[in-house]
Amino acid sequence: MHDSLVLYTNPMSRGRIARWILEEVGAPYRTELIDYGPAMKSPDYLAINPMGKVPAIRHGTTIVTECAAICAYLADAFPEADLAPPLTARGAYYRWLFFAAGPLEAATTDRDLGMEPNTEQQARVGYGSIEAVLETLEQAVSVSEYIAGAHFSAADVYLGSHIGWGLQFGSLESCPAFVDYWARVSDREAFRRANELDDRAMSSVAKHHPA
Amino acid sequence: MHDSLVLYTNPMSRGRIARWILEEVGAPYRTELIDYGPAMKSPDYLAINPMGKVPAIRHGTTIVTECAAICAYLADAFPEADLAPPLTARGAYYRWLFFAAGPLEAATTDRDLGMEPNTEQQARVGYGSIEAVLETLEQAVSVSEYIAGAHFSAADVYLGSHIGWGLQFGSLESCPAFVDYWARVSDREAFRRANELDDRAMSSVAKHHPA
Repeated sequence: MHDSLVLYTNPMSRGRIARWILEEVGAPYRTELIDYGPAMKSPDYLAINPMGKVPAIRHGTTIVTECAAICAYLADAFPEADLAPPLTARGAYYRWLFFAAGPLEAATTDRDLGMEPNTEQQARVGYGSIEAVLETLEQAVSVSEYIAGAHFSAADVYLGSHIGWGLQFGSLESCPAFVDYWARVSDREAFRRANELDDRAMSSVAKHHPA
Repeated sequence: MHDSLVLYTNPMSRGRIARWILEEVGAPYRTELIDYGPAMKSPDYLAINPMGKVPAIRHGTTIVTECAAICAYLADAFPEADLAPPLTARGAYYRWLFFAAGPLEAATTDRDLGMEPNTEQQARVGYGSIEAVLETLEQAVSVSEYIAGAHFSAADVYLGSHIGWGLQFGSLESCPAFVDYWARVSDREAFRRANELDDRAMSSVAKHHPA
């Protein structure tokens, strides 16, 4: 039953990122599907993630939430999967993991909410402006094969998911750099397996949209 | 001149976080003060950080931006400073680093901008609601001495700075858990040294507020 590694997820969520990294890692894991609504806010699940959000993972007694943290944690916990650079060469790896979790996520969310900071506010906002974020990102995905250099890493799973979903749902403007990067990082067996598993799980969860 | 490690900063910025982690690391470094305005948007500095923001560090040929990434990178690059848990025990470490860089930063920024997502929007927003973020954070800083367990780590520098500044500037509601945690993590020689250096640097930079 692989009780030592558990994924708490819903296929209509960023849990798909956690599924992808788990499939990259290749260790056996058990999936617990959590419905939106009361199940995700139940005391049992809040004990896992007080935010009442998926995904989360449990590995033995360790609980990890936040998609980017799940990617970074699993890459380190399963070094044989070769998903993180050596400790002495993690500059780009951390830089773009945190760029995606911070400025990219915040800027695209705010734009989705109809909030674009004016010039005065840009000085106080960590991401500055969405234009700066998108220009920086376009440059970042263009300098090497993968975001942390010549090798695919957990940072590509996380940043790639942002870009792939952004292109699919229109929350990011399409440009050749994004399209090419996404084509490079998504052409993987683990990504296809993860999608198949989550597509199949769709029939097991309540079909209402989280909203 | 310690050209191998350079801090690009302004003492009126989150660069104070990068200064603190550098002082924790203890390796010699050189400081380049970057004024707000044209200097921070100059081609020279944009080559370091296309976002046109401080801080950034350069370590040899590696450039790292994003405060949380700088903390994580330096902790790994200088293992003798003992600022990161072993690779097999990084669950809480990554979880709360990314929680601070993602949901905490985004929720407090949006509140500062006067944007608080309604119930429908909360389902689409990564951080959900600021109430969920603050309750989760209060619980997180209360379970152990430091955020990743019994030992001080780079995650305390980053998360602690958020909490310390939040208390100081009123962007976080004060509560005993935050006050106690901040007292624990800020009682350090490296923090005092970093503050002295940045306070002294105030006289060297243009005195206008970034806004």
